[in-house]
Amino acid sequence: MGIETDPETGQYHRAPNHFASRITADGRDGWPVEAGRYRLVVSRACPWASRALVVRRLLGLEHALSVAVADPIQDERSWRFTLDPDGRDPVLGIRFLGEAYAKADPGYSGGISVPAIVDIPSGKVVTNDYPQITLDLSTEWTAHQRPGAPDLYPEPLRAEIDEVNAVVHADVNAAVYEAGFATKQEAYEEAYDRLFARLDALSERLATQRYLVGDTITEADIRLFTTLVRFDAVYHGHFKCNRNKLTELPVLWAYARDLFQTPGFGDTVDFDHIKRHYYQVHGEINPTRIVPKGPDLSLWATPHGREELGGRPFGDGTPPPPPPAEETLPAQW
Amino acid sequence: MGIETDPETGQYHRAPNHFASRITADGRDGWPVEAGRYRLVVSRACPWASRALVVRRLLGLEHALSVAVADPIQDERSWRFTLDPDGRDPVLGIRFLGEAYAKADPGYSGGISVPAIVDIPSGKVVTNDYPQITLDLSTEWTAHQRPGAPDLYPEPLRAEIDEVNAVVHADVNAAVYEAGFATKQEAYEEAYDRLFARLDALSERLATQRYLVGDTITEADIRLFTTLVRFDAVYHGHFKCNRNKLTELPVLWAYARDLFQTPGFGDTVDFDHIKRHYYQVHGEINPTRIVPKGPDLSLWATPHGREELGGRPFGDGTPPPPPPAEETLPAQW
Repeated sequence: MGIETDPETGQYHRAPNHFASRITADGRDGWPVEAGRYRLVVSRACPWASRALVVRRLLGLEHALSVAVADPIQDERSWRFTLDPDGRDPVLGIRFLGEAYAKADPGYSGGISVPAIVDIPSGKVVTNDYPQITLDLSTEWTAHQRPGAPDLYPEPLRAEIDEVNAVVHADVNAAVYEAGFATKQEAYEEAYDRLFARLDALSERLATQRYLVGDTITEADIRLFTTLVRFDAVYHGHFKCNRNKLTELPVLWAYARDLFQTPGFGDTVDFDHIKRHYYQVHGEINPTRIVPKGPDLSLWATPHGREELGGRPFGDGTPPPPPPAEETLPAQW
Repeated sequence: MGIETDPETGQYHRAPNHFASRITADGRDGWPVEAGRYRLVVSRACPWASRALVVRRLLGLEHALSVAVADPIQDERSWRFTLDPDGRDPVLGIRFLGEAYAKADPGYSGGISVPAIVDIPSGKVVTNDYPQITLDLSTEWTAHQRPGAPDLYPEPLRAEIDEVNAVVHADVNAAVYEAGFATKQEAYEEAYDRLFARLDALSERLATQRYLVGDTITEADIRLFTTLVRFDAVYHGHFKCNRNKLTELPVLWAYARDLFQTPGFGDTVDFDHIKRHYYQVHGEINPTRIVPKGPDLSLWATPHGREELGGRPFGDGTPPPPPPAEETLPAQW
């Protein structure tokens, strides 16, 4: 995997998503919501893909939208299904996610990213537009959600959620990568300063309220969570985001543990995939490809005390049951 | 600087020191102790050299043994005096420490390391044998030590100090490098495990006694200190020693701060030299050569509470006065 930075400024920016068709209840883009028709391709290493794993779990969409988990280690052909028997995804029958990209656009030469949703009958990728994917699971897939599924994108709060998402994206989700992949000191420091200033502001916001928007879990919490859960395991050292460990930011650390311990969050997290992916794939910043043994992950199970702030995690809904057997992860520590 | 590891095992071991003549009171190796005759060459980045800086300060040897501070960034000719006017050490008149090595042994082709003591009249390096250098400052340079200089290597405690030094060397001083420079996962993990097991044992030892051996500061404390003071700034991230930050190991963190705040310790520490050296010189493990902004170094000044354990830092001696003006470092945070 080549990390592309601006040769002048040393800045890194994630490439835009190419496939942006939407799967909707009314099928207006030609891709109607349909149980069993699509396959969600993820890496459990990837924070952008992990959002979709959390949302799918919280909404109980496992039976309607199956999942393919890519090997956390990409090769020069990008994400691959080397964890599956014979190195092929058993449903799509392909060895590389790129094959579904090529089916949809034979001339495509851009990046291959997760999450991606593939149309099983045609084998074509429909979308890799991660910010839209989770919103559509919440708002377009309602017919297939479990009874008691929470509303993660409630109509009256959407403007506020969008606003929070925008700053969390720029200053947290993307900023850790911009710090870690920067090739010039100035570009790194700019991202680092922006990241920690935002984490301080989020700490202040979350000191007195359990969740980012309203009093229930929303899309905004999910987007912040998938970065925070990787922070000490990867971003602190590998991406040089080292003003503090997450464990040293009391409010955010308690907030992140609260979510981790909520059904649908921690049960999607595979720290082994996360650590191996970042440290072994990014030879540009870790040429030895050695994976650090630390830190102590068992701290994620410690009491967080956030119940005292009140809040109704699932609103009028209920927590999801445990994941299906085939998606249950091994013990994480 | 090329980091040499065993291609089979991926293990790193520091090269032995080549120049091991001793400067003694009786001059039996041909190098008698003499005020003003020798120059101590250090890098403030280097933990091995920094031991000599601390000992020299504690014993008040600044007037008898002058110091040359190398640029923290070596080039392919190793340590250089690029911080000095015209890029030359004003006393030795050389641009590279290697010139003093070549003067002493024109056929020498090994590594150039600090600390090194150079004979000013001949321009020859006398010794780069760092473990002996500090012991000799304590035991052979007594005629030039200040009134009230502490005994850092007291006769009745030498066996115990030597024993502690041996395990601290193997499992702490050297182990951080062996973890950081390992090129195979197994070699890294072996060093990491050994390091943290030893830090745990040292935490236990230091929980109830203020210093490592006896009730005063000794050579043993100095050797542990120069590794601990670099731990969070460098070894935690750059060398992947990330089970914990030093700030997360309460006993060792308080112990290290106690020493840092003792005259003669913290006043020798240049965190800018430390961070720039490791992150910018080791392209093999940090190809971008970006220097992390964190962590927050001002924590080194926070109260440590170790006075409660008693102890007599300088024994029957006294603390050293502040460093000479020309050796006073800028504010560190």
